[in-house]
Amino acid sequence: MSEFLRLLPPKEALEIWLDNLPDSSPFLQPLLVENSLGRILAEDIRAKEPLPAFDRSTVDGFAVHASDTFGASESLPAYLNLADEIPMGHPAQQPLSIHSAAPIHTGGMLPSGADAVVMLEYTQTTGTGELEVLRPVAPLENILKTGEDVKPGQLILSKGKRIRPEEIGGFSALGIQQINCFAQPRVGILSSGDEVVPPDQTPRPGQVRDINSFSLAALVENFGGIPVRHGILPDREEIFLGRLQEVLEHSDFVIITAGSSASSRDLTARVIQQMGDPGVLVHGVNIKPGKPTILAVCNGKPIIGLPGNPVSAMVIARLFAVPVIHKLAGLKKPAIPASIPASLTINLPSQAGREDWIPVKLVSSPQGWIAEPIFFKSNLIFSLVQADGVICIPPESNGLPGGDLVNVVIL
Amino acid sequence: MSEFLRLLPPKEALEIWLDNLPDSSPFLQPLLVENSLGRILAEDIRAKEPLPAFDRSTVDGFAVHASDTFGASESLPAYLNLADEIPMGHPAQQPLSIHSAAPIHTGGMLPSGADAVVMLEYTQTTGTGELEVLRPVAPLENILKTGEDVKPGQLILSKGKRIRPEEIGGFSALGIQQINCFAQPRVGILSSGDEVVPPDQTPRPGQVRDINSFSLAALVENFGGIPVRHGILPDREEIFLGRLQEVLEHSDFVIITAGSSASSRDLTARVIQQMGDPGVLVHGVNIKPGKPTILAVCNGKPIIGLPGNPVSAMVIARLFAVPVIHKLAGLKKPAIPASIPASLTINLPSQAGREDWIPVKLVSSPQGWIAEPIFFKSNLIFSLVQADGVICIPPESNGLPGGDLVNVVIL
Repeated sequence: MSEFLRLLPPKEALEIWLDNLPDSSPFLQPLLVENSLGRILAEDIRAKEPLPAFDRSTVDGFAVHASDTFGASESLPAYLNLADEIPMGHPAQQPLSIHSAAPIHTGGMLPSGADAVVMLEYTQTTGTGELEVLRPVAPLENILKTGEDVKPGQLILSKGKRIRPEEIGGFSALGIQQINCFAQPRVGILSSGDEVVPPDQTPRPGQVRDINSFSLAALVENFGGIPVRHGILPDREEIFLGRLQEVLEHSDFVIITAGSSASSRDLTARVIQQMGDPGVLVHGVNIKPGKPTILAVCNGKPIIGLPGNPVSAMVIARLFAVPVIHKLAGLKKPAIPASIPASLTINLPSQAGREDWIPVKLVSSPQGWIAEPIFFKSNLIFSLVQADGVICIPPESNGLPGGDLVNVVIL
Repeated sequence: MSEFLRLLPPKEALEIWLDNLPDSSPFLQPLLVENSLGRILAEDIRAKEPLPAFDRSTVDGFAVHASDTFGASESLPAYLNLADEIPMGHPAQQPLSIHSAAPIHTGGMLPSGADAVVMLEYTQTTGTGELEVLRPVAPLENILKTGEDVKPGQLILSKGKRIRPEEIGGFSALGIQQINCFAQPRVGILSSGDEVVPPDQTPRPGQVRDINSFSLAALVENFGGIPVRHGILPDREEIFLGRLQEVLEHSDFVIITAGSSASSRDLTARVIQQMGDPGVLVHGVNIKPGKPTILAVCNGKPIIGLPGNPVSAMVIARLFAVPVIHKLAGLKKPAIPASIPASLTINLPSQAGREDWIPVKLVSSPQGWIAEPIFFKSNLIFSLVQADGVICIPPESNGLPGGDLVNVVIL
């Protein structure tokens, strides 16, 4: 399994990988709603009760029988008897008699018999216990009907939905305090390369500190996985094999970054291939940075071999590892990547047939956002630190002209 | 301080509020880099060493004296003596002699004397200990110079920057393991309204469950604050006053949602006004939903009074509370909101002079994203639960035509 027998287009490579993942359901985890932010719902939720639970006024004014106001005008008002005010948080003491109007606040509960609310500004009190209504209201005007937001039995949230603050509000509205979420996938992270040492060690000449284990762990955390760092492997097949086997057993997904040399990348592919069927599915993607990417599934578990260069590793992890984390987490609808349209400052040439990703700085201008490409080598981590986002030059294009409106994916 | 003496444009309202916040610096908190994801850096970081720390090869090939290859071609190769291979993670045993070539891997350390690397594919080994070089290389070709990414003393990250996976990678590269971050702001959250009961309670007729405390706590968490829920206040000034005073003492920022009635909103403004100078700065914003918004600063601490309707509360919290959380957290550059361009399905009329925010569903199509507006009443939380994002109709417009490309802010 040597490198780059055939470079696959990124889209096709990702599809092959995802298609080879088994449809296993992650474990369920019961959670208090208030602790469920960002988690994936593992059950369909149906409402047990209507929302609102009673007819409510949407304005400040007077609850009336709509028919009592028909024909009312400023010159010929309808005269209604003032009933008792409806207190907030309580039902009316009695049904609303005909030819009567009960003062009501926004959110107040309509008395039985009432079918509309006249807004305060279209009324006048006379001081004699009577109310002048200066405009007619139609039945149902200015009220929220029982069940208008949600009906009993209605499916309100589906399995596989990510829980945002909005969903937490919805659960609270219905009195739902505990839900089943999917367990978060455990993502094992391994670095390799004879030249790589942990960041707490002072590198000797020829050595570099491990960057990828830490940046990738943070990326995994950001996108809903539980990262577990498993250290650095030397480029020795027998050690690598045993260690990867062990890590794979304890993980739902394994991310390996190779050392920067081609021999280290070849070793990584060779070792992954021995982890089980179907093994390495993709070795080499037509993308820059990140050509030497390895995508594998071994005994039902995904493994990705990332290039060792820190910029390549991060770009490829966002494009390939994040969708797999989302799939393993039970997310149904793929997340929409945060992005912003911006005007490109300069021409960006690229090679047709290859997908290119370029880090950019975003600068605000009176005409909107401006994207300034950062000239980078994929081994310079600080070109990504400076970047606000990345832009894609698609394979079918041989570059983007300066002044073009591009879509910047926010980092 | 009665409602809506003057409705301010949203942008102006936010500016007034932010301008009245004192420039206090949040507390410092030393953190391990691996625990700092999403936090705000509280110090300028300068590199103590160069990156890379030594001249590295960017390709697989042979380290050479560039001048030894000048004039080389396929028909007239340069012949060089093969030196020992440079092992990954180690320096060469000896300087590279003139007319010699040392095998080197990508990421390997250049031997002293060498100033370029010839790519493997432009060479041929002869079997007699000699190397044929088929193309010339220029000095510095295919190498990363010491300090090319970062120079010693260089400012690499500034105070006020949010830490992403990329920054964590940068710290690791430099061996930085602990940094000072700003403490996260504590955000006190209070609900009010005589009709509001906690979600674990079954509402009696006329009562509704507290939605806002929970959805807002999740929003605060999402945007880097530490939410603390302080329960529900009745619409009684003497209780409200004492409780708010207490909460304000223990918080960096207080979010109050009023009951849904106008009298509950008036009470909220009256109570806030008594918390200290300058008090209520804005009462009423020209926006829909969310007109009755109250913005205040009392004794140096911001307070926001949100409308009680759950949709209004969430929309206004995103527009006003989030920038204040970011300011209190020490974030220097405002966050770029995640958004996506989409084609609007239908005409959306609006009132000129007012800023409107409409929840939309996003549907993927071969032509790109499509935004389907959700018809909502601001008291229906499930209109937000269904939404993928919101779009803005700016004050200077009286609507958006169907087919227009709009910017959907992702929820």
